[in-house]
Amino acid sequence: MRKVDVAVIGGSAAGIAAAVTCGRHYPDKSILLITKDRQVPIPCGIPYIFGTIGDPAKNVMLDAGHKKPGMTILGDEVQEIDRDKRVMTTAGGEEISYERLILATGSKPIIPPIPGVEKDNVFAVHKNVPHLGKMLERVNASSRIVVVGGGFIGVEFADECRKGRDVKISIVEMLPKCLMLAFDDELCDVAEEILRKNGIEILAPDKVVEFVGDDAVTGVRLESGKEIPTDMVILGIGASANTELAERAGLETGPTHGIRVNRYMQTGDKNIFACGDCAEKFSFFDGMPSKLKLASEATREARIAGANLFSTRRMNRGVIGTFSTVVDGTAFGLAGLSARGAERKGYDIAVGEAEAPNRHPGSMPGMAALRVKLVFERGTGIVIGGQIMGARSGGELINTISTCIHEKMTADDIALFPMGTHPALTASPVMYQLTNAAEMAIKAIRSS
Amino acid sequence: MRKVDVAVIGGSAAGIAAAVTCGRHYPDKSILLITKDRQVPIPCGIPYIFGTIGDPAKNVMLDAGHKKPGMTILGDEVQEIDRDKRVMTTAGGEEISYERLILATGSKPIIPPIPGVEKDNVFAVHKNVPHLGKMLERVNASSRIVVVGGGFIGVEFADECRKGRDVKISIVEMLPKCLMLAFDDELCDVAEEILRKNGIEILAPDKVVEFVGDDAVTGVRLESGKEIPTDMVILGIGASANTELAERAGLETGPTHGIRVNRYMQTGDKNIFACGDCAEKFSFFDGMPSKLKLASEATREARIAGANLFSTRRMNRGVIGTFSTVVDGTAFGLAGLSARGAERKGYDIAVGEAEAPNRHPGSMPGMAALRVKLVFERGTGIVIGGQIMGARSGGELINTISTCIHEKMTADDIALFPMGTHPALTASPVMYQLTNAAEMAIKAIRSS
Repeated sequence: MRKVDVAVIGGSAAGIAAAVTCGRHYPDKSILLITKDRQVPIPCGIPYIFGTIGDPAKNVMLDAGHKKPGMTILGDEVQEIDRDKRVMTTAGGEEISYERLILATGSKPIIPPIPGVEKDNVFAVHKNVPHLGKMLERVNASSRIVVVGGGFIGVEFADECRKGRDVKISIVEMLPKCLMLAFDDELCDVAEEILRKNGIEILAPDKVVEFVGDDAVTGVRLESGKEIPTDMVILGIGASANTELAERAGLETGPTHGIRVNRYMQTGDKNIFACGDCAEKFSFFDGMPSKLKLASEATREARIAGANLFSTRRMNRGVIGTFSTVVDGTAFGLAGLSARGAERKGYDIAVGEAEAPNRHPGSMPGMAALRVKLVFERGTGIVIGGQIMGARSGGELINTISTCIHEKMTADDIALFPMGTHPALTASPVMYQLTNAAEMAIKAIRSS
Repeated sequence: MRKVDVAVIGGSAAGIAAAVTCGRHYPDKSILLITKDRQVPIPCGIPYIFGTIGDPAKNVMLDAGHKKPGMTILGDEVQEIDRDKRVMTTAGGEEISYERLILATGSKPIIPPIPGVEKDNVFAVHKNVPHLGKMLERVNASSRIVVVGGGFIGVEFADECRKGRDVKISIVEMLPKCLMLAFDDELCDVAEEILRKNGIEILAPDKVVEFVGDDAVTGVRLESGKEIPTDMVILGIGASANTELAERAGLETGPTHGIRVNRYMQTGDKNIFACGDCAEKFSFFDGMPSKLKLASEATREARIAGANLFSTRRMNRGVIGTFSTVVDGTAFGLAGLSARGAERKGYDIAVGEAEAPNRHPGSMPGMAALRVKLVFERGTGIVIGGQIMGARSGGELINTISTCIHEKMTADDIALFPMGTHPALTASPVMYQLTNAAEMAIKAIRSS
């Protein structure tokens, strides 16, 4: 029987970050990372395989053939956990005893129970290199593609699949606009406009009621009665926590069906931790269950779990939810709550917006406009959300906003935020979008 | 006599931001912005006139011919302030009465008392469009240029003046390395390496003891005995607060010779505020006087002054000092204290560093390495400084670091910072430089 101090199940973002964090905090402990797939794709990079990158093999974060410093990697699948004995058994027939165990088993794409979903050429986005290779072959062979779901994954797939191909792409979205679960309307509108300009058809609000065809899909029938012929379907409608192993081991799950954890990322078994897509989450704002599944959030939870294994050192303050995407070169990002999301949670809000070139003067090369929208709780003036749209530098600016939210900064605090500016890197200090968006909300906050 | 509620003297970053802030906070007040020069150059953009932009007229932030919303602009120079009567007299013969006055008179380049400094073709960097035009003509006519001072201004001038020109440029710096007042040695070394690779000669540590030539400069003689022939000299050795008008009005100055202000940016006269380069500053860290002069800091102080004119609303917590530069496409940035600066202030420090591509996977287009170095106070684990080097997205990342410093976040807080990541915009969540740099310091902090 193999004996290890720490076993981590799962080789994606959460598993790797948990193992690395454990290694940093407890350098004397032996760490075994167990991953089912020999090669683990970078999750957020998956859509880019289909355009910008062009090859699933170029989007790999963990290769079980490589040795990582401080950890041993085992390409195998854990089948049972005997919690009393602290022993796991694997598909490969190994018995492994552990002191502490981290479950980072991730998520599985949701396969909607729509008639015909089992047909050939209907693809869910499994995080699996050979599967992604087959999907890419099919994309290359298709002259029509239907993407089901207009969230991040759907939009990124549509935008990437069109690149360098003569293909007609349609997105089918249940909500009135694409990306509506993330952004406020005006950002969704800009994103949709860019997609349409690139020849992508958006069918929203509408939904698929049937995948038609014999063995292989040849079209989708929509609730509106439309029928769209297609050579393939990509399902981009989200993911659900992969909790099979945890449930077999008798661990409890929570209201969003993730593995139930406390604020230290500990499951009901004090020797077993869970983090990432497989773990139950709660909102930073109101403590309510959160369904958000993000690789960045997964690593954040992994840094808590990994540090707490042998001594409680870090507490989870909940999910703020910070993410970004790019549609044909234009960046979109959200941290915390959109105006719509805040109102849905019952907040009385004040909004401030500012737009400026991300260079100064605007004649500096590489200039692109960058817009910031901030959402404040009106009574306290505390920032609860921010959105960016435009220049790629917004991909880091959204992280400054995320920090402001995390620290519960007020509009006055942000207006006095000590930014650094440079002609070739940012907006001018007079026009700096973050400070100015905060200033634009002050009047509404003071009048509350 | 003209009567205004608020008069602002100075049309650069501090003056404009103060006027705009006043307009937002006190929309019923009349605001007059008085500026000596009809056109005010964007201060940080000045070095870029000499290469990337190519024309002083393209680097203008305020043009007195234009109307700005909410303020009247007067192209004139205030000569006297009668504080008892609250009346100013201008060079143009106007008498202007005010309720509140903001001094944003900026700074003047330091002209060192070196023999020969008065010769033709020895240029200080005056923030004045016609002067910059003459300087540009001289740069274009020169085949040898000596830049005195290897700080930001000197390095940016050297890097820009070489662009598209067949010119030999030498930087003379008193300290052992360029940019040493800002960055730790390893960043200075990379910056110097880039400069040298582009044919720029660095003479450091050395200093000019004489500018030689008849009417016009033909060379510089250095303390080391070297004599460098040259067609022109650019003085980039810093600036001093422009306090003439304030001193004539009997206002006190502080230890760094700026106009003395309280934490509300109020001078000794409760109706007169000062902000920007002309105002005395103190460190966020130890409260000691700070000589730092930055346009971004100027606008921060202006947002305090403008908001406090008729009601005390905002307090100055002192200068963190956040700035960035670009040397031939490589970004360098600092927020707060470098390791050297922290040790000089007596801190016991812990340092964490991390480097990663600013895309994931690294095969995404536009990839560049980005390095982060964080400096923590060892006993508390609170971050007191950060430096970035590499990709241009670091220009915004340094602002996230600045926010972390402002909020006194610890290494554990930063390690759990809720970042958003995206393949086309940032490092991967597993490799994210800011969280990982914090993790790398944890061991040293815990062992304290």
